[in-house]
Amino acid sequence: MDKAIGVFDSGIGGLTVLKEIINILPKENTIYLGDTARVPYGIKSSDTVIRYSLENAEFLSSKDIKLLVVACNTASAVGLPALRDKYNLPIIGVIEPGARKAIKVTKRKRVGVIGTERTIKSSAYVNSLKGIDPKIAVVSQACPLFVPLVEEGWTDNDIAFLTAKRYLHALKEANVDTLILGCTHYPLLKDVIGKVLGDEVLLVDSAEETAAEVVGVLRSSNLLKTSNKSAVHEFYVTDAPEKFVEAGIRFLQGTELKNVKKVSIA
Amino acid sequence: MDKAIGVFDSGIGGLTVLKEIINILPKENTIYLGDTARVPYGIKSSDTVIRYSLENAEFLSSKDIKLLVVACNTASAVGLPALRDKYNLPIIGVIEPGARKAIKVTKRKRVGVIGTERTIKSSAYVNSLKGIDPKIAVVSQACPLFVPLVEEGWTDNDIAFLTAKRYLHALKEANVDTLILGCTHYPLLKDVIGKVLGDEVLLVDSAEETAAEVVGVLRSSNLLKTSNKSAVHEFYVTDAPEKFVEAGIRFLQGTELKNVKKVSIA
Repeated sequence: MDKAIGVFDSGIGGLTVLKEIINILPKENTIYLGDTARVPYGIKSSDTVIRYSLENAEFLSSKDIKLLVVACNTASAVGLPALRDKYNLPIIGVIEPGARKAIKVTKRKRVGVIGTERTIKSSAYVNSLKGIDPKIAVVSQACPLFVPLVEEGWTDNDIAFLTAKRYLHALKEANVDTLILGCTHYPLLKDVIGKVLGDEVLLVDSAEETAAEVVGVLRSSNLLKTSNKSAVHEFYVTDAPEKFVEAGIRFLQGTELKNVKKVSIA
Repeated sequence: MDKAIGVFDSGIGGLTVLKEIINILPKENTIYLGDTARVPYGIKSSDTVIRYSLENAEFLSSKDIKLLVVACNTASAVGLPALRDKYNLPIIGVIEPGARKAIKVTKRKRVGVIGTERTIKSSAYVNSLKGIDPKIAVVSQACPLFVPLVEEGWTDNDIAFLTAKRYLHALKEANVDTLILGCTHYPLLKDVIGKVLGDEVLLVDSAEETAAEVVGVLRSSNLLKTSNKSAVHEFYVTDAPEKFVEAGIRFLQGTELKNVKKVSIA
């Protein structure tokens, strides 16, 4: 059916997930909401992140979407139960897909997880990994400066390297063979993280695996788009559309970022 | 009179201003509001910062305050006209006091200004400085990573130093003799900024001068507290009171941080 796939994030980071969804499902219509007026979520309490997630979902659900993707690790880590309680449509977060992918690729069952303060405190990745394989060893680390570094565009200078070295020290010591990039901003720091940890550590981001889950759910629920109309991609933000377009290009790589409208949701 | 002085900031930074107010006016009652659910303001649009400022003022004005201090550079830079239009009470921002102090201390009339992206884009400091002395030379620089560095507690390591070096390069080249720390978080980076610019550059923060203006306005309007009841200091935040208490201690230095309540203002 022609209804759109709804996607929300606290800001621009979720565009990395949207990009994979568009790659794998080029015919589907999408509606993206970035809550740029209240970004970032990762430093805020669970209660507040849950409230923001519900308000974002309310906006998207008013657009009559067929499936909701929570393309934000922090909102996925704490908001999914409340969202699934309230809305009667398939809801996909990024934590489970990321955890599943890490389990697939780890050779020595030693997985590291990095994310925002709220994501790491929630233990969502640890619970998800141990739920799939109780024997997995998990080491977690919050990296609060990674998002501001990416937003500043400092992804490959000495400051980015020293910051990565400091945050990743314990994970290197713990000898993990796989690292989950548990925040949609972090793939932009892949090079510098690779330099610190070495090439032998596999870096996992949730975007591709999440997109694969979207396909699976749409197919099994018979919700894939059937018409041949060309795909429409709409974008909404709660603040500063121009800035979103400017910064979003680095995340979306290729897909054109137009039709960005400002909306008030709170 | 016994009504309180109202103070708001986007988060904890405004506590540096509150501390000076309490130092200089130990008998006065104060009510502080930190908008921790929507922090930071410095990366958001003027429209959104104005809306948040009006909502913060609305909350404090419902507590029947006698004077309002906007203890946030970003909100002062863009929100004062709208606040003064709406509320019939004295309103003091931090930009004018900071600019006045810089004019007082500069020897060669070469002043640097650092602040958030929004504060620098607003040109509020440049306008204020030139309004007092049109011959002053001003060089401005946004420093988006300074707030996250302070929030992370990284105020004196190699990363803080390299970041300061990068941001302050143009100011050093411009040979300023005075630097306005145009964000309430920045005084916590004084050491590292001093190391980069050298001891001969005077660092100006608005807190003391703003507190002096509060005294002046209360006295001239005959609003100073007359009773001998001991001072009451109330604190409200829009998210995560525990975190506010934990981080606030570094800003408030001495004054006890208790009676922190969570409120919903939007």
